[in-house]
Amino acid sequence: MEQQSVLLDLFVLFAAAKIFGELFQAIRQPAVVGELLAGVVVGPHVLGLLGGGEQDVLEVVAELGVIILLFTVGLETSLDDLRRVGRPALLVGLLGVALPFAAGMGLMIVLGYERADSLFVSAAIVATSVGVTARVLRDLGAVNTTAARVVLGAAVVDDILAIMLLAVVSGLAVGDLSTVELVVLIVEVLLFLGIVLFLGPKAIRRLSSIVRVPGIPESPFLVAVLLTLGLAAASEVIGLAAIIGAFLAGLIFEFRKEEVATQIEPVYEFLVPFFFAITGSQLDPTVFGDVGILGLAAMVTAIAVVTKVLGGYAGSVGLERGTRLTVGVGMVPRGEVGLIVASLGLGLGLDAELFGVVVAMTVVTTIATPPVLGPLVAAERRRTERTER
Amino acid sequence: MEQQSVLLDLFVLFAAAKIFGELFQAIRQPAVVGELLAGVVVGPHVLGLLGGGEQDVLEVVAELGVIILLFTVGLETSLDDLRRVGRPALLVGLLGVALPFAAGMGLMIVLGYERADSLFVSAAIVATSVGVTARVLRDLGAVNTTAARVVLGAAVVDDILAIMLLAVVSGLAVGDLSTVELVVLIVEVLLFLGIVLFLGPKAIRRLSSIVRVPGIPESPFLVAVLLTLGLAAASEVIGLAAIIGAFLAGLIFEFRKEEVATQIEPVYEFLVPFFFAITGSQLDPTVFGDVGILGLAAMVTAIAVVTKVLGGYAGSVGLERGTRLTVGVGMVPRGEVGLIVASLGLGLGLDAELFGVVVAMTVVTTIATPPVLGPLVAAERRRTERTER
Repeated sequence: MEQQSVLLDLFVLFAAAKIFGELFQAIRQPAVVGELLAGVVVGPHVLGLLGGGEQDVLEVVAELGVIILLFTVGLETSLDDLRRVGRPALLVGLLGVALPFAAGMGLMIVLGYERADSLFVSAAIVATSVGVTARVLRDLGAVNTTAARVVLGAAVVDDILAIMLLAVVSGLAVGDLSTVELVVLIVEVLLFLGIVLFLGPKAIRRLSSIVRVPGIPESPFLVAVLLTLGLAAASEVIGLAAIIGAFLAGLIFEFRKEEVATQIEPVYEFLVPFFFAITGSQLDPTVFGDVGILGLAAMVTAIAVVTKVLGGYAGSVGLERGTRLTVGVGMVPRGEVGLIVASLGLGLGLDAELFGVVVAMTVVTTIATPPVLGPLVAAERRRTERTER
Repeated sequence: MEQQSVLLDLFVLFAAAKIFGELFQAIRQPAVVGELLAGVVVGPHVLGLLGGGEQDVLEVVAELGVIILLFTVGLETSLDDLRRVGRPALLVGLLGVALPFAAGMGLMIVLGYERADSLFVSAAIVATSVGVTARVLRDLGAVNTTAARVVLGAAVVDDILAIMLLAVVSGLAVGDLSTVELVVLIVEVLLFLGIVLFLGPKAIRRLSSIVRVPGIPESPFLVAVLLTLGLAAASEVIGLAAIIGAFLAGLIFEFRKEEVATQIEPVYEFLVPFFFAITGSQLDPTVFGDVGILGLAAMVTAIAVVTKVLGGYAGSVGLERGTRLTVGVGMVPRGEVGLIVASLGLGLGLDAELFGVVVAMTVVTTIATPPVLGPLVAAERRRTERTER
């Protein structure tokens, strides 16, 4: 058969995502689980309905989807509320990086893997991918609960630490990390955050008065698109995940917010399902055929889950117990950063089967979290409503 | 430099498109010209601000953009009105294919090119790309004028004929086209059109009553996205351009049309500029450095322009003179079908410089049409308003 059209792939993914999403909503599960499973089912490893060979083409659509998702979540998050949870978010972020990395190193060394392999696997299980949790929070209308704020704040901290860890690990693996380079990276990241969070809101107010110049039609949505693409790209350029930039863009965007929130909805409906379906399509269920790999994947996944839950729970000390558990579970999904670390490792000589283990861990934590997180988030929302009354 | 992020490319394209678009609107030119020029300027051949090497990744975003554009135009076109211009549309489509092909063959043979090369170049100058004209019609609020209807109808006819011609030409070039295959193609295309146009509207009414099942939230926008992706993909599968399917999707979509029209706007604002900026980025102004190639490109482009204008003018006999001229000019822009023909030819041994000539013809007709078409369309709209009053 000749190369299948990308549009056909997109149609198959979208249709399957919507059908599975509706089915899961009918059994009171978050639609996102259905969308992920839809991807697994139509993907190359099960039904093979996608054209194949077009992976990076599909990924750009997925990337647009997750950026729109994080912008929307940022838009619905109040910067002041986020500042108020600064301390627990910082702690959750720190512990959520330290615990998985330490436990991962312990496991790999005990199992007899060499240092470089151990470093890459451990670094890959560190970074939370907030996309899945953000989607469950949105599906259940719980973006403005305490747990949500802590998770979103911690995800920013977490991502920054994971990227720095990646720099250190790559340097150790190839043996050429200079202290200067590391310091430059840290300064860059802190400058970026400082500029965006403290100067961003003012700059947007300025920009919005510029677009009000007579004769040129003002469009808050246009400003939003430019800001989101711009900060997402800037974020990638300095070495952070693009979704962090997109989230920050939403967070600082205050110019005719309600209008933009309405306008972003159809874009969200169109693009976001692709992210989840395409992520799902990357899971190869047959990797679990080899018992040794299955066992290792299970152990790594277990460590990845337990240490994040513990980190989230311990880091949010002082909050209600239910909230702490929600934070812990909300930090569990891993995603693109883990995959980036693993594929970088692959290029530097990481064992191909260990790469498979990381991919499996990523997809399992992503697919398994929403069914557990759903009820916790629902309870958290009820708690918040009770407190506010 | 390492591989630049796709998001940065998208940001650069979007920002440049918006800046140039505003500038062109300020001097009362269609924004689309600015967007095309923005692409030329930031593209690899002038400033080189794009990462490069990611061409098919950018193209999928461009493709989503042009599909949303044609769906929107289809949505704003009335099927009944289109049926009313059936005869001129058919004639314009037929002449708009026959004249450029005949003239192209004549020129190439006179210049001494061999048969296969002549066939490919002549086939490549046949197909109108209605995207640019559709955009000018929308920018100037003239989708519901007679000229617009004739052009849109003729574009469907034109695309069908061009695809059939492509099948014949490829067959002649490699010498293995069976009559059976050609008949199968023609039957497929006619069946597709028949099914979509005569059964489509009923099927959508059915579908919209299904999505009204209690418990499942109805979303006309979702139905629209599925229909658009589905028909665009189906259209590609049977060998037509995807934009024909997207246009048909909009044309037959009647279910809560106003709501969908409002919801599609932000998606349009976000994705459509990419199509024009990315198309512009493909023009290499340096191809005109070689005088021989420049001369040939100029001759082929002149033939491409003159024959389409003549075909449009002659085919719309019986309509007002201004309308006929608008139709002719509206048919001038060439696009993806021409590029497809040329790249197929390249694979079958077409001369690389002739490929460059086709690309130049495509981009020049695309960039040069809007400034001429703009005033004609504006006059056409005034004519329509006068008639209706």
